[in-house]
Amino acid sequence: VDFSRLRVVLVSPRNPLNIGAVARAMSNLGFTELRLVNPYHVAFREARSAVKAAALLQSAREYAGVAEAVADCTLVVGTASAGGRELQHSLKRLESGGREIREHLAGGAVALLFGSEKFGLANEDLAHCHWLMRIPTREEHESMNLGQAVAVCLYELIRDPERETAQTAPHKPATAAQMELFTSLLLDVLNQSGYINERVAESTELKVRRLARRLDLSAHDAEIWLGIWRQILWRLKSTPPPAP
Amino acid sequence: VDFSRLRVVLVSPRNPLNIGAVARAMSNLGFTELRLVNPYHVAFREARSAVKAAALLQSAREYAGVAEAVADCTLVVGTASAGGRELQHSLKRLESGGREIREHLAGGAVALLFGSEKFGLANEDLAHCHWLMRIPTREEHESMNLGQAVAVCLYELIRDPERETAQTAPHKPATAAQMELFTSLLLDVLNQSGYINERVAESTELKVRRLARRLDLSAHDAEIWLGIWRQILWRLKSTPPPAP
Repeated sequence: VDFSRLRVVLVSPRNPLNIGAVARAMSNLGFTELRLVNPYHVAFREARSAVKAAALLQSAREYAGVAEAVADCTLVVGTASAGGRELQHSLKRLESGGREIREHLAGGAVALLFGSEKFGLANEDLAHCHWLMRIPTREEHESMNLGQAVAVCLYELIRDPERETAQTAPHKPATAAQMELFTSLLLDVLNQSGYINERVAESTELKVRRLARRLDLSAHDAEIWLGIWRQILWRLKSTPPPAP
Repeated sequence: VDFSRLRVVLVSPRNPLNIGAVARAMSNLGFTELRLVNPYHVAFREARSAVKAAALLQSAREYAGVAEAVADCTLVVGTASAGGRELQHSLKRLESGGREIREHLAGGAVALLFGSEKFGLANEDLAHCHWLMRIPTREEHESMNLGQAVAVCLYELIRDPERETAQTAPHKPATAAQMELFTSLLLDVLNQSGYINERVAESTELKVRRLARRLDLSAHDAEIWLGIWRQILWRLKSTPPPAP
């Protein structure tokens, strides 16, 4: 997927902090093309002059209208809360809409439109959209912060479904031989310290053995524990037991 | 999944706007339990007094240390950029870590830790974590804004994989009969308007028929188009053709 083909289009943004936050999320997640339609100029200027303003923000272009901003795109997607106004369009959840956008990016440019913080996308903006997409927010509190909404939408585009089940390489697990040594040293410690009652020693040994296996130690950590048991044993054996 | 079992734990947050943004994202996405460890008090007070502060923020509790904040949790997950410091822990990508957290929430409480804006989680905070999770940001620009990082992580927890392929119910498609009427009216319009060259009329008809099918109209839109063609036809037939 060629993510340089995605245009993030902010329509009438008003808050410089939000414009900066959008640019930062784009840079974090690997997107480059920011377009602003009719931004509040003080906000755009402030966002650009901010210390953290990325090159991305410097190269953001300004357009007089949505038509001009999306002219080179073959798919135009609006973002919306689930309010009633937009029901003239088909409204997809982010999970399925994101997949369609990814597929489309393989062959063409896609514009993703975000409305102003206060009013969202106006009807005349929505008329340029092929369909609308919404983040699955709660009905009781639908409206997301602009910078957060952009971050979530872009994350959905880059998330890798194949990594969902993939585990990170686990630590190399301890071998059975290491765990046997671990267990025998631990039993020795328990004996020396008087933890084990002679009369039930055999069943205790089984319990301790199972206890040790449940630790699910890595090879590295097993070595550390072996050192700990040896040190404790050395100390126990060099100290006479307390007088009965 | 019982999302009330997830505790969002902010360690040493410094910026009231970020604390407020975290609370807003939690409320948007359906999470309720916010905990703050050693917050900068001016920031916490400012965030709480903000007009938009949700009930969630009012009920956020403050703790002196990470141990106290995560005491009731059976899984503690830290968030991190991919820097070298954290390599003592296993580091999972958000996609796979999120799945594990969801599975764990079915049976117990989970703490999700976020470090301060400037320094992230300190080593003594990380020591409380079972494993670490990272948002797949670009290596060149790893560090996300706190409010955006929380929004993305929480979205990953609530996103519904089954909705990924599910389409929203498409508009009821036009019937073949509607499309046949559409085509014949369109052909009539093309004839009346002199678009169709008599000599190639037959192949043109096939082309127009395919053109119409590719529109993939809904039943509703097909009716609108039928009205349009009828109106154009009425107008064409009531106007004499231009003198040759």
